[in-house]
Amino acid sequence: MEYRKFGKTIVARIDKGEEILEKVKELALKENIKLANINALGAVGDFTVGVFKTSEKKYYANSFTGDFEIVSLTGTINTMNGEFYTHLHMSAGDSEGKVFGGHLNKAVVSATCEMIINIIDGTVDRYKDDEIGLNLFKF
Amino acid sequence: MEYRKFGKTIVARIDKGEEILEKVKELALKENIKLANINALGAVGDFTVGVFKTSEKKYYANSFTGDFEIVSLTGTINTMNGEFYTHLHMSAGDSEGKVFGGHLNKAVVSATCEMIINIIDGTVDRYKDDEIGLNLFKF
Amino acid sequence: MEYRKFGKTIVARIDKGEEILEKVKELALKENIKLANINALGAVGDFTVGVFKTSEKKYYANSFTGDFEIVSLTGTINTMNGEFYTHLHMSAGDSEGKVFGGHLNKAVVSATCEMIINIIDGTVDRYKDDEIGLNLFKF
Repeated sequence: MEYRKFGKTIVARIDKGEEILEKVKELALKENIKLANINALGAVGDFTVGVFKTSEKKYYANSFTGDFEIVSLTGTINTMNGEFYTHLHMSAGDSEGKVFGGHLNKAVVSATCEMIINIIDGTVDRYKDDEIGLNLFKF
Repeated sequence: MEYRKFGKTIVARIDKGEEILEKVKELALKENIKLANINALGAVGDFTVGVFKTSEKKYYANSFTGDFEIVSLTGTINTMNGEFYTHLHMSAGDSEGKVFGGHLNKAVVSATCEMIINIIDGTVDRYKDDEIGLNLFKF
Repeated sequence: MEYRKFGKTIVARIDKGEEILEKVKELALKENIKLANINALGAVGDFTVGVFKTSEKKYYANSFTGDFEIVSLTGTINTMNGEFYTHLHMSAGDSEGKVFGGHLNKAVVSATCEMIINIIDGTVDRYKDDEIGLNLFKF
């Protein structure tokens, strides 16, 4: 990964073989980002996206391998108990253009990933909501 | 729904059982937002997305129920005749990761929806374009 | 196409029959945009999205015609050797809501396309990476 910061915007390139969530964490910790919005595109060869079954309060994972183009990768960096937290969803098109996606668990870059991070001045923490079963924005 | 404003950026949480378009309207009216860009993710259990058939100048709706993860929810708040207007498109992945989407008519949150609204200083109104059959940006 | 600039944000309408990549180029050259982030929605009747086969270092194209709603159109304007460059990925839902997408090669607007361009103060050039077979961000 390499990146550059322009004011409140970071432009990043995540490289072949790198896992996107790990790199977002590395970048956020290095730059001390507490709150930001993320948008990215790229190509991934191996990714896992989850779906949350609300009745069971459990994530189920779908894993994909092959040549995929990221068509949406969006979400936030924020904090939980003051520590780094990221929540991203992703979808990607396969070799026929069919698109698959969900809550991002893992995505390994196969060619490149180009990411824009817009830093927001402020903080939003999370709390575990036991009724929903997820870590939600706390205001 | 709860949210916080940081400068020109609003971070919002839309809650289980709430309908996204209604909450965007409520927030925009309360904060007097005339022009903004929206990005969000989350989980929905019941949503309707339309496709505009250009030859007929009519929207056709596809409705989905189940456990879905929003993978893209993007668009704008602006105005038509000076009044609130929003235009959003959404796609969401099902329990197998298959993604469905279109012009957003309705989306009921099943777990949470995390939304970033970037307010733009200015206004863009809309006009009804009779040839296209839609309400378009007027410059 | 018509558009208006509000500070560092451009709001654009791309019209029926216009090709999106051509219009992004026209706008970027006219406004001398060196680096920007793009988000859009709209309706397209004819589009081609590619998938990069990493093992062959070649793009393969999937073309679609019909009534489609853009559900994600994201990427950047930047430069290669100082000249205009854009890299966009797109996905769109068909009349049943099924979503198809990939690296954007061509998209002809069928009704309207509403685009937000966030200009970033700075430059990021590209270089041809022979190992990957693509033009990557150079920092």
